[in-house]
Amino acid sequence: MADIDDEELPPQDALDLIARDPNKINDHIRVDFDDVLAEADGTHSINCVWKGSHKCYMCGKNFCYNMCTFFMGIFISFYWGMMFAYITFIHIWCCTPVMRMFVLQCNMMQKCCGTIVNCFLAPTAEACGLFFSNIVVHNS
Amino acid sequence: MADIDDEELPPQDALDLIARDPNKINDHIRVDFDDVLAEADGTHSINCVWKGSHKCYMCGKNFCYNMCTFFMGIFISFYWGMMFAYITFIHIWCCTPVMRMFVLQCNMMQKCCGTIVNCFLAPTAEACGLFFSNIVVHNS
Amino acid sequence: MADIDDEELPPQDALDLIARDPNKINDHIRVDFDDVLAEADGTHSINCVWKGSHKCYMCGKNFCYNMCTFFMGIFISFYWGMMFAYITFIHIWCCTPVMRMFVLQCNMMQKCCGTIVNCFLAPTAEACGLFFSNIVVHNS
Amino acid sequence: MADIDDEELPPQDALDLIARDPNKINDHIRVDFDDVLAEADGTHSINCVWKGSHKCYMCGKNFCYNMCTFFMGIFISFYWGMMFAYITFIHIWCCTPVMRMFVLQCNMMQKCCGTIVNCFLAPTAEACGLFFSNIVVHNS
Amino acid sequence: MADIDDEELPPQDALDLIARDPNKINDHIRVDFDDVLAEADGTHSINCVWKGSHKCYMCGKNFCYNMCTFFMGIFISFYWGMMFAYITFIHIWCCTPVMRMFVLQCNMMQKCCGTIVNCFLAPTAEACGLFFSNIVVHNS
Amino acid sequence: MADIDDEELPPQDALDLIARDPNKINDHIRVDFDDVLAEADGTHSINCVWKGSHKCYMCGKNFCYNMCTFFMGIFISFYWGMMFAYITFIHIWCCTPVMRMFVLQCNMMQKCCGTIVNCFLAPTAEACGLFFSNIVVHNS
Amino acid sequence: MADIDDEELPPQDALDLIARDPNKINDHIRVDFDDVLAEADGTHSINCVWKGSHKCYMCGKNFCYNMCTFFMGIFISFYWGMMFAYITFIHIWCCTPVMRMFVLQCNMMQKCCGTIVNCFLAPTAEACGLFFSNIVVHNS
Amino acid sequence: MADIDDEELPPQDALDLIARDPNKINDHIRVDFDDVLAEADGTHSINCVWKGSHKCYMCGKNFCYNMCTFFMGIFISFYWGMMFAYITFIHIWCCTPVMRMFVLQCNMMQKCCGTIVNCFLAPTAEACGLFFSNIVVHNS
Amino acid sequence: MADIDDEELPPQDALDLIARDPNKINDHIRVDFDDVLAEADGTHSINCVWKGSHKCYMCGKNFCYNMCTFFMGIFISFYWGMMFAYITFIHIWCCTPVMRMFVLQCNMMQKCCGTIVNCFLAPTAEACGLFFSNIVVHNS
Amino acid sequence: MADIDDEELPPQDALDLIARDPNKINDHIRVDFDDVLAEADGTHSINCVWKGSHKCYMCGKNFCYNMCTFFMGIFISFYWGMMFAYITFIHIWCCTPVMRMFVLQCNMMQKCCGTIVNCFLAPTAEACGLFFSNIVVHNS
Amino acid sequence: MADIDDEELPPQDALDLIARDPNKINDHIRVDFDDVLAEADGTHSINCVWKGSHKCYMCGKNFCYNMCTFFMGIFISFYWGMMFAYITFIHIWCCTPVMRMFVLQCNMMQKCCGTIVNCFLAPTAEACGLFFSNIVVHNS
Repeated sequence: MADIDDEELPPQDALDLIARDPNKINDHIRVDFDDVLAEADGTHSINCVWKGSHKCYMCGKNFCYNMCTFFMGIFISFYWGMMFAYITFIHIWCCTPVMRMFVLQCNMMQKCCGTIVNCFLAPTAEACGLFFSNIVVHNS
Repeated sequence: MADIDDEELPPQDALDLIARDPNKINDHIRVDFDDVLAEADGTHSINCVWKGSHKCYMCGKNFCYNMCTFFMGIFISFYWGMMFAYITFIHIWCCTPVMRMFVLQCNMMQKCCGTIVNCFLAPTAEACGLFFSNIVVHNS
Repeated sequence: MADIDDEELPPQDALDLIARDPNKINDHIRVDFDDVLAEADGTHSINCVWKGSHKCYMCGKNFCYNMCTFFMGIFISFYWGMMFAYITFIHIWCCTPVMRMFVLQCNMMQKCCGTIVNCFLAPTAEACGLFFSNIVVHNS
Repeated sequence: MADIDDEELPPQDALDLIARDPNKINDHIRVDFDDVLAEADGTHSINCVWKGSHKCYMCGKNFCYNMCTFFMGIFISFYWGMMFAYITFIHIWCCTPVMRMFVLQCNMMQKCCGTIVNCFLAPTAEACGLFFSNIVVHNS
Repeated sequence: MADIDDEELPPQDALDLIARDPNKINDHIRVDFDDVLAEADGTHSINCVWKGSHKCYMCGKNFCYNMCTFFMGIFISFYWGMMFAYITFIHIWCCTPVMRMFVLQCNMMQKCCGTIVNCFLAPTAEACGLFFSNIVVHNS
Repeated sequence: MADIDDEELPPQDALDLIARDPNKINDHIRVDFDDVLAEADGTHSINCVWKGSHKCYMCGKNFCYNMCTFFMGIFISFYWGMMFAYITFIHIWCCTPVMRMFVLQCNMMQKCCGTIVNCFLAPTAEACGLFFSNIVVHNS
Repeated sequence: MADIDDEELPPQDALDLIARDPNKINDHIRVDFDDVLAEADGTHSINCVWKGSHKCYMCGKNFCYNMCTFFMGIFISFYWGMMFAYITFIHIWCCTPVMRMFVLQCNMMQKCCGTIVNCFLAPTAEACGLFFSNIVVHNS
Repeated sequence: MADIDDEELPPQDALDLIARDPNKINDHIRVDFDDVLAEADGTHSINCVWKGSHKCYMCGKNFCYNMCTFFMGIFISFYWGMMFAYITFIHIWCCTPVMRMFVLQCNMMQKCCGTIVNCFLAPTAEACGLFFSNIVVHNS
Repeated sequence: MADIDDEELPPQDALDLIARDPNKINDHIRVDFDDVLAEADGTHSINCVWKGSHKCYMCGKNFCYNMCTFFMGIFISFYWGMMFAYITFIHIWCCTPVMRMFVLQCNMMQKCCGTIVNCFLAPTAEACGLFFSNIVVHNS
Repeated sequence: MADIDDEELPPQDALDLIARDPNKINDHIRVDFDDVLAEADGTHSINCVWKGSHKCYMCGKNFCYNMCTFFMGIFISFYWGMMFAYITFIHIWCCTPVMRMFVLQCNMMQKCCGTIVNCFLAPTAEACGLFFSNIVVHNS
Repeated sequence: MADIDDEELPPQDALDLIARDPNKINDHIRVDFDDVLAEADGTHSINCVWKGSHKCYMCGKNFCYNMCTFFMGIFISFYWGMMFAYITFIHIWCCTPVMRMFVLQCNMMQKCCGTIVNCFLAPTAEACGLFFSNIVVHNS
């Protein structure tokens, strides 16, 4: 049965290889060269030094990231798949019914609580409210 | 008699197998692939790695969830059925009458409480209210 | 005499067997299958598992509730009948007259209390009120 | 002389046996069957059980209340009669004159108190009121 | 001389035997039968019990009150007569002159107090008032 | 010389024997019979008891007051005469000059105090006032 | 030279023997008979008692006051004359120059104080004032 | 050189012997007879006593003041001359330059202080200001 | 694959050697000669001293900066390249999914929390709100 | 070079010997005779005493001030000249560059600080701001 | 390469020898003679003393400042050149990238923080906001 779900899935999200973040959830991770290193006017280093810096930064970043994903990407994604299946199962079959039962108890609590408040707190607050019942302001 | 209730029930909610959450109570549990993993522009991993990650995530999640429900779903739903029957019985035959009796006592309390408030607190608050009874504001 | 009251009662509320909650005092206790268990889109379990869950929940709930009411309903309602008779008797012949006597004492208290307040608190508050008697606001 | 009062009394309030609460002082004590027990839709017990519960509740309540009043009503009302006579006597011949004397003393107190307040508190409050005497608000 | 006052008094207040509370100072003491005992609809006791209760309450109250006043009324009123004569004497010949002397001292106190306040408190408060002297509000 | 003052006095206030309180300084002392004792409707005592009470109250009060004033009035008024002469002497020849000297010292104090306040407190308060110097309110 | 001043003085204030308080500095000391003793309506003492009281009060007061002034008035006024001469001398030749020197020091203090306030407190208060710089009020 | 200043001085302020307080710095020191002693109407002392009091007060005051100034006035004024010369010298040649140096340091302090405030306090206050950024007022 | 990214990159940002800070992230670092050293009017040093100071400042600054970048620039930029690759990997494959799971738990928490608040806090606050329910302002 | 500055200086401020305080920095030091000593009307001392006082005050003040300046003025002004040269040097060559460096560090601090505030404080304050998001005012 | 920068620099800021503070960063350091020493009218010292003071002040100040700059100016400016080169290097190659990494972490923190706030604080604040939800103002 899991296969059927899996087969239905490809046509709707065909795994766009260009735009890999359709929901923009990692949009804040932008670390190009000129986001990190920049020289203000008047304090420029020698040209060849600046060119070398740029080359080294790009190589170091790309090489390192590809190594990590190549060796670990598959296993990590498989781990998250199982993890979220487990979380989903717990929420649907356990947390939601417990929550339902809790809400049911709270309804009873709320009535009880509202009665006590109306009985004791409300007249007291209303009586104390007479404190502001005679404000006289003379404007001139 | 329980059978009759059970027979009346199917026509009104014939257990729609497609839309399994008509009241939208678990609508927040959405964990598709692009809700969890995404690569911002400029830091893309190798294509085959990305495709493999997607495959592994979907398989892991579907397989794991189906196993759990297959082995435990029936028993859990039977347990919740008995549980909510018991809760319903306690509320109808016990909590509601006790609540009724409590409200009845509170009515007496409220009268008593209101009398004391009117007697002691109200004139005090009204007298203190003279504090604001002579505000003179000159606007220029 | 109790019989007469009992005979007058049936015509006015003939114990409607369909709508058993005319005053809607237990309206919040609704625990149908789709109020408790629901699967969001994208995480559906196998069809036969879902059907079995529904069956088990309904059976468990109905069987359990009917057992409880069959064995205990009569005795519980008889208990509440006597209990509320007793409460009614205490309120009418005892609490209300005591309350009346208490209100009568409070009237005396209130006069006494009002006199003291007028004597000490009122002039003090009025004098302190001079604190706000010379507010000058220049608007420009 | 007590007889004459008693004879004058019947015509004005001829003890209406139907409406026994003309001043509505016990109007909150309503405990019919459907104020106490009710089953929400979807959790109905077997019909004969529900009918039996209704019967038992009404019998238990009426029988119990009539027993109490039959054996104790007369003596309780006689007790309250004497009690309120005593309270009335104390209030008219004792509390009211004492209250009168207390008010008389308070008049003297109030003059004394007002003089002290005018002497010490009033100029202090007026001087402190200079705190607000130079508020400049620029609106733009 | 006391006789002359006494003889002049009857024509102006001829002691109206019907309306015995012309100044309405005891108007809150009303304890008729239906101010004390009342049965809400649905919980009526047997008719003869209710009639008996009414009879007993009225007899008990009237008999008891008349006994008290018959044996003690004269002496109590004589006691209050002498008591208020004594209070009047103390107030006229002693309290009022003492009060006069106290007011005279307070006049001196008030001048002294006002001078100190003007000297120390007023400039301080005025200087602290500069705290609010530069409020700028931009409304947009 | 005291004689001359005394002789000049009779024509201007010839001691009106009817209205003995021209300045209304003891106007709050009114204790007639119906200011002290009163019976609400429905709780009347026997007529002869009520008449006797009225008689006893008036006699007791008048007899008692006249005795007191007859034996002590003269001496008390002589005591107050000398007392107020002494108070007057102290105020005119002693308190007023001392007060004058105190006011003179306070003038010096006030200058000194105002200088210190202007020096330290005023700039501090003005600087703290910048706290409110940039209130921006957007109304929409 | 003191003589010349003394001779110039009589024509300008010839010591009016009738109105002895031209600046109304002792105007609050009024203690005539009907400012001190008064009988409310309904509680009059015997006529001869009231007349005797009036006589005694006036005699006692006048005799006592004249005795005091006759024996002590001259010496007291001479004492106050020398006292005020001494006070005047101290104020003119000593307090005023000291005060002048104190004001001169305070000018220096004020500059110093204002500089510190502008330096530390003003920017802090202005920065804290940003607390109110974004108040958004939606009126509906 | 001091002589030249001294000779220029007489024509501009020729030491007016009549009005000896041109700047009104001692104007509050007025202690004539009727500023100190006064008798309210109704409590006059014997005429000769009052006349004697006036005589003694004027003599005592004038004699005493002239004695003091005659023996000490010259030396006191010489002392104040030297004192104020010294104070002037200290202020001109010492306090003012020190003050100048202090102000110079404060300018540096103020820049430093303002930078810190802008750095830490300003954004905190602005963020806390969001507390008031969503006030919704419904007027009805 | 990293090479392809690197080859696509040059045309879009061809490493402008003139404007080396396109995003203005280091715009605040400006330390020319006249931002650091300046002489106010009236306190000028000798001309040759001022010229020498200028020469020395410029030489020292340029020489020192170029040495640093020449020896360390390449290695630092390579280090940052690898560092940011690592950070990016951690965020995409680890932090974001954990965050997702955390948000999912919070949804459940929020429902639970909202229920409790509605049950206990809301009626209490509403009852206390009666404190302001009777403000009477008289404007005159 | 210092000579040239000195030679340019005389024509622009030729040291006006009459008005010696062009910037009014010591304008508050005025201590003439009638700013210090004055006699109110009614308390004049003998003429010759007053004339002598004036003479002594002027002599004492002028003599004393001229002595001080004659012996110490030159040295004091030389001391202040060197002192202010030193202060100027420290400020120009040392304090200002240090200040510049401090401001540069603060820029970095401010960014860091603003980020933290936006991260933690801002959402908390905004959430707390819901406290005022439901103000309902009924005007009548 | 440093030479090229140095050669480009002279034409744009040719080191103006007259106005040596183009950015007005040391404008507050003004210490001419009449900013420091001044004599108020009425307390002038002898002319030759005043002239000498002026001469000494100008000489002392100019001589002292030129000595300091002559011996130390060159070295101090060279020191600041190297110092600011070092600071610039640290900021560009080290602080800014660290800052970038810190901001990146804060983005994650902010999401987490916002979720918790929305979960717990927001409903509490909204519920407490009911405190102001029933303000009734009667204007008259």
